[in-house]
Amino acid sequence: MAQESNPIDMDKIVSLSRRRGFVFQSSEIYGGHGGCWDYGPLGVQLKNNVKQAWWQSIVQERDDVVGVDSSILMNPRVWEASGHVAGFSDPMSDCLKCKMRWRADDFEGKICPSCGGELTEPRQFNLMFKTFMGPMEDTASVAYLRPETAQGIFVNFDNVLNTTRKKLPFGIAQIGKSFRNEITTGNFIFRSREFEQMELEYFVKPGTDDYWHEHWLQARIDWYTSLGMKRENLQLRAHCSDELAHYAKACSDIQYLFPMGWSELEGIANRCDFDLKQHSKHSGKTLEYFDEESKEHITPYVIEPSAGVDRSVLAFLIDAYTEEPDKDDIRAVLKLHPRLAPFKAAVLPLSKKEPLVNMAKEIHASLRKAWMVTYDESQSIGRRYRRQDEIGTPYCITVDFDSLDDNQVTVRERDSMTQERIPISEIKAYLCPRLTGELK
Amino acid sequence: MAQESNPIDMDKIVSLSRRRGFVFQSSEIYGGHGGCWDYGPLGVQLKNNVKQAWWQSIVQERDDVVGVDSSILMNPRVWEASGHVAGFSDPMSDCLKCKMRWRADDFEGKICPSCGGELTEPRQFNLMFKTFMGPMEDTASVAYLRPETAQGIFVNFDNVLNTTRKKLPFGIAQIGKSFRNEITTGNFIFRSREFEQMELEYFVKPGTDDYWHEHWLQARIDWYTSLGMKRENLQLRAHCSDELAHYAKACSDIQYLFPMGWSELEGIANRCDFDLKQHSKHSGKTLEYFDEESKEHITPYVIEPSAGVDRSVLAFLIDAYTEEPDKDDIRAVLKLHPRLAPFKAAVLPLSKKEPLVNMAKEIHASLRKAWMVTYDESQSIGRRYRRQDEIGTPYCITVDFDSLDDNQVTVRERDSMTQERIPISEIKAYLCPRLTGELK
Repeated sequence: MAQESNPIDMDKIVSLSRRRGFVFQSSEIYGGHGGCWDYGPLGVQLKNNVKQAWWQSIVQERDDVVGVDSSILMNPRVWEASGHVAGFSDPMSDCLKCKMRWRADDFEGKICPSCGGELTEPRQFNLMFKTFMGPMEDTASVAYLRPETAQGIFVNFDNVLNTTRKKLPFGIAQIGKSFRNEITTGNFIFRSREFEQMELEYFVKPGTDDYWHEHWLQARIDWYTSLGMKRENLQLRAHCSDELAHYAKACSDIQYLFPMGWSELEGIANRCDFDLKQHSKHSGKTLEYFDEESKEHITPYVIEPSAGVDRSVLAFLIDAYTEEPDKDDIRAVLKLHPRLAPFKAAVLPLSKKEPLVNMAKEIHASLRKAWMVTYDESQSIGRRYRRQDEIGTPYCITVDFDSLDDNQVTVRERDSMTQERIPISEIKAYLCPRLTGELK
Repeated sequence: MAQESNPIDMDKIVSLSRRRGFVFQSSEIYGGHGGCWDYGPLGVQLKNNVKQAWWQSIVQERDDVVGVDSSILMNPRVWEASGHVAGFSDPMSDCLKCKMRWRADDFEGKICPSCGGELTEPRQFNLMFKTFMGPMEDTASVAYLRPETAQGIFVNFDNVLNTTRKKLPFGIAQIGKSFRNEITTGNFIFRSREFEQMELEYFVKPGTDDYWHEHWLQARIDWYTSLGMKRENLQLRAHCSDELAHYAKACSDIQYLFPMGWSELEGIANRCDFDLKQHSKHSGKTLEYFDEESKEHITPYVIEPSAGVDRSVLAFLIDAYTEEPDKDDIRAVLKLHPRLAPFKAAVLPLSKKEPLVNMAKEIHASLRKAWMVTYDESQSIGRRYRRQDEIGTPYCITVDFDSLDDNQVTVRERDSMTQERIPISEIKAYLCPRLTGELK
């Protein structure tokens, strides 16, 4: 029987993240700020590595995809065309007595959960953050923080087509922050009001859309597993017809087995030609593709793999977190793929004595030109190994007294804890194929 | 006598950016959105390369600096402590007749520039974008879009100190979006309402702050020139005492010779202990460092090199743009440092015939695992070289009919236009040291 939730305790992940510097509460010294998080020194490296791995797989290694980076503040007419102004909302009820506002589908009765007062009929509450651009705070200067990066791609469809001369099928990819004024946030960085997305809009000829939808479902599952995520912790869930947006032909979520149960990591939708047609209509600019084969102007269909950066980071952390019996103790180790690990290696002199420290620092200085590499000389070597295990550093390079004679170091692999003696001059060549995952 | 402005015409840079896909107007199909810009397929690569070069120099290659990535929406008390709520403002006057609002220091008289009506006395207009978090739009739920990334570093001072166990001097670096509701935007991407910053807060013992201020002035100038920026287009401008913020001991701008004159690329300030003391006072949390030598708790001073990503991108573009006589024509070439170039190489089959195309595509596929590499088979080889020159691609790899026999290709260098014949198996080894700038 399939598992219903990941046995890893979320509190352990939150605590490790806080203690080692992956993720802190935003503005923590001021008591935090609801549903926002800050990435610490290790977290920013892990998050950047996830983003770079996505970009490499989606943009760099493909002929048919290019990137963009559009602004967060867009012309508000974009959100009228996309349907967000009219429809991106939750039903809310106000308490007539204490004036508190509640999400209408959170409770059955008509009585305020806080004071027992009477509630109004539910009204629609838009989830977009609103601000004002320019000196006046009036309707003419309203602007929204984008609730998704996707629209920044659609409005640039023509610009990208004209400057890159791509032929169908082709995609436009973007990584960036989005904002949703969620009523309920939670599950650590899983659902927050400020979050980061990795979105691809892949434009295809109508009629080939089912094929490409399947292609991207498989390609995106493969991406997670290629970075070490366990296949059994991933599943596809196809949306039922009553869950689909009216314009979407199909949508499947890639779900991960989080501690709170199977939850969405990425949605992959077939949005047909809805977005380009809406923006054509609202902007008055034709957004079409000239098909040289049929000599016709067509509006492409679009397949949209839309992934959450923060959710991916959380899933990779949970998936990598392992506790193993080690002598009389428990070894906590983050078995992150080397491409995702914040530090690729740690250089550790066996003692604080010279010339060991000097030799270790020289090795550190030469390696960190190529990779993020840390250096640690405090406490016993055993404790230092444990510290690196806990933050996922795949290789520890120990400089000992023999190193002074034989110019070799001991390289310890994180997961197997096996040790190999390597000439100092060959460390880079040794690490290189192992850090890309070509060699284990 | 020193030049007063860069002879490059800004319109040429804007036009090239638009035409080749570096930078587009935000929401262009809706007539744009004041002071916001989108990076196209080439622009996003250039911008990411600038950010990565900064991160590598500031975080990866230094022992004493770590990174963070804090949220854009922070607790509003942060902006009270920092002084932004009270003091981050411009004086504005309203027209009593037409209700237009004007920046008070833009004109001398008391008459509306639009309708000639009478103007009110100037009032302070805060430059932070305001929004509301949660369902209510009331003062309790006000939030601001951060006007700088720096405060996200200061409020995490203790978290970073505790998780990394760094000793003074040490720094915390961050790259991210900031927002300022500027009344006047302009000069392309030089001043926009949404922009990206690369900020370092470098904490030092009081008394060593002058030394470190000098250090960072030099280190930051060196960074720009190491990426190919011409030294004569950079200058330092020290702020006069009446320009300095009341808490700052000194500040110098690194200026670049833009087409509109010498303008700020980066500010490097000695902010003393103002920020940590303000946040200590407002949050009630002690933000101090225990100095093991003197056995005293101290509040470090901070040196802040604060650079604009978009300004750097613009300066690198202007600095690289060159027009050279070439036969009867003009060759436009972007002499970008290889580390910054959007594409590191282009693979060009001499003709569209097989098996040339197949061979070229195989080379392309193998190279793009390591780098962003483009492929182009349309039009004459001369025109294709020109196209790559104009977008700054440092190396063109041409596959010709001889390649089928000798398994060699012609590698053309962008700036010198010299050509070398290289075995296909050695292309990677040939490009590697040239792309990092180790070998020219």
